[in-house]
Amino acid sequence: MTADKDYYRSKNVLVTGGEGFIGSNIVRRLVEIGANVRVIDNRESGTGCNPSNLDGLSLDVEVRRCGDPGAKEAILDAAVIFNIAGKVSHHASMLDPLADMAANALDHLKLLDICREHEHRPVVLYASTRQFYGSAQFLPVDETHPIAPVDINGIHKFAGESYHSVYSSVHGIPTVSLRLTNTYGPRQCISDSGLGFVGWFIHEAMRGRTIELFDGGEAKRDFNYVDDVVNAFLTAGADPECYGRTFNLSGEMGSIRTVAEILQKICPGCSVTDVSFPSDRKKIAIEDYYGDSNRFRDLTGWRDSTPLETGLARTVEFFEANRRDYIAE
Amino acid sequence: MTADKDYYRSKNVLVTGGEGFIGSNIVRRLVEIGANVRVIDNRESGTGCNPSNLDGLSLDVEVRRCGDPGAKEAILDAAVIFNIAGKVSHHASMLDPLADMAANALDHLKLLDICREHEHRPVVLYASTRQFYGSAQFLPVDETHPIAPVDINGIHKFAGESYHSVYSSVHGIPTVSLRLTNTYGPRQCISDSGLGFVGWFIHEAMRGRTIELFDGGEAKRDFNYVDDVVNAFLTAGADPECYGRTFNLSGEMGSIRTVAEILQKICPGCSVTDVSFPSDRKKIAIEDYYGDSNRFRDLTGWRDSTPLETGLARTVEFFEANRRDYIAE
Repeated sequence: MTADKDYYRSKNVLVTGGEGFIGSNIVRRLVEIGANVRVIDNRESGTGCNPSNLDGLSLDVEVRRCGDPGAKEAILDAAVIFNIAGKVSHHASMLDPLADMAANALDHLKLLDICREHEHRPVVLYASTRQFYGSAQFLPVDETHPIAPVDINGIHKFAGESYHSVYSSVHGIPTVSLRLTNTYGPRQCISDSGLGFVGWFIHEAMRGRTIELFDGGEAKRDFNYVDDVVNAFLTAGADPECYGRTFNLSGEMGSIRTVAEILQKICPGCSVTDVSFPSDRKKIAIEDYYGDSNRFRDLTGWRDSTPLETGLARTVEFFEANRRDYIAE
Repeated sequence: MTADKDYYRSKNVLVTGGEGFIGSNIVRRLVEIGANVRVIDNRESGTGCNPSNLDGLSLDVEVRRCGDPGAKEAILDAAVIFNIAGKVSHHASMLDPLADMAANALDHLKLLDICREHEHRPVVLYASTRQFYGSAQFLPVDETHPIAPVDINGIHKFAGESYHSVYSSVHGIPTVSLRLTNTYGPRQCISDSGLGFVGWFIHEAMRGRTIELFDGGEAKRDFNYVDDVVNAFLTAGADPECYGRTFNLSGEMGSIRTVAEILQKICPGCSVTDVSFPSDRKKIAIEDYYGDSNRFRDLTGWRDSTPLETGLARTVEFFEANRRDYIAE
């Protein structure tokens, strides 16, 4: 990471969704290594934003949408944009598809279009997702896997990624999209069951509640601790070989049940039970998924380096120390 | 087509984009076979709409966007919706991406969402496109080909198709998407060079002008005469085996130059010349493309039945008889 540190030091960097889970972890790292960081966050529900995520930093957050005309100055001022803003919930996207479209497609198109109109060519890193692969047709899933979104969120995330690709190939904006898998860690919004099962399980475990596994929780997933994901973004942004490209991230593989069982060890007060799959969620659920990130590793040397047990223990430790800001009692 | 005729007779059918090229050809066929047809068209530029396309029919066209709340009554009244509305130009989508998004993504999401909210489950046929396959990685291209849109129009057309797929799998709306290839024929908007090269070549040939081929026009394409495409839509809508699915259409294969040379025979006053590729268009151009429609043929028996020479001759004949309404002099 030494080369990356030098790359960002004293550079003007914009983080959209900078009060959210992954965004705030990127902001904190960038501040640490001496970048000039600006933050935009629309503070909309369903994005995982939490002003406490930036506690201790003296940053003025611009509260607006990332594609808002008022964001123009921040966009045009940036040498690098970590474009992390977005809504995450698959379930919520089915209930309010237009809100999902605004956050995950429209805002990103507007942001890129501000760059195009002003002939401004910052490096743009986009937080994409493995979610639009849909149900895995082969495992592990690499970047050649068919795109087959099973819900509205997946459709808009793919549109968002595709905007970045087209604005790179046609307008020369150096963009990199990282297709994230299940990411967990400090500053995650864990009190909303729609924003990822790992966070929700942590929340329930830390309250001494019962973790409910749908259909036994046997489906496989892979997991990245957020620090590894931050490393991946900083690595990609500093490496011109990555520009114009799209990469999977992947991490330690385990079942959904595995996560519950590890948490039960860390938080002995909680229990785990099997329940049947709610029908509205079942319709957009996928079976086993785990990814192949060799394309990114071969190019950059990036690796997922935090074992799931270690990462979960650190995460619980963080939330224990900051309980008031993250846990609904 | 006899079974299909019976299927539509006396049914309430809505055609969105019904004043456009393909939409109006569908409307005319449906009226002929005795369906109760309603038409919505927003009459926006870049959609290929032309009120002359419905000449001779006594239909009240609702001039509005297909996802407009005012369209609700027409949507809820329909047993079958031919959802054909949209913008077609790749080039225009790069200049005004937000307008492309509104027409090709937002409006369709709103239309489907009106069905969801009212628990209305009409058969919905969607005019999709082979365009989001991007540059062909193998030929002929079948439906398993990777999705890799090269321009904004392709991104939004894929989002539009995906909405139909998700609203089918999750909400039980029986949708069918047909991925159209180069379609040509009577009632096409031929006076706008951005709405397909076949139409534009016809326009220039009929004015005795010079047809300009970019880089020799050697790239291969495949072509469908519009009557064959209308047959495909009516067949798909009447066949429950098609519901929830996506199909390529494909037609006679030839180079872009082939089309120019056939037109030169039909319209002896025109000439053909080679020019270099304009750089902004080159960036979103694809190489050879031709498709494989076996999935649809095996299921329904549909075939492209009009040879390119025959179709082009009929098309020129139509425009000759209706010159005033279609040709910019």
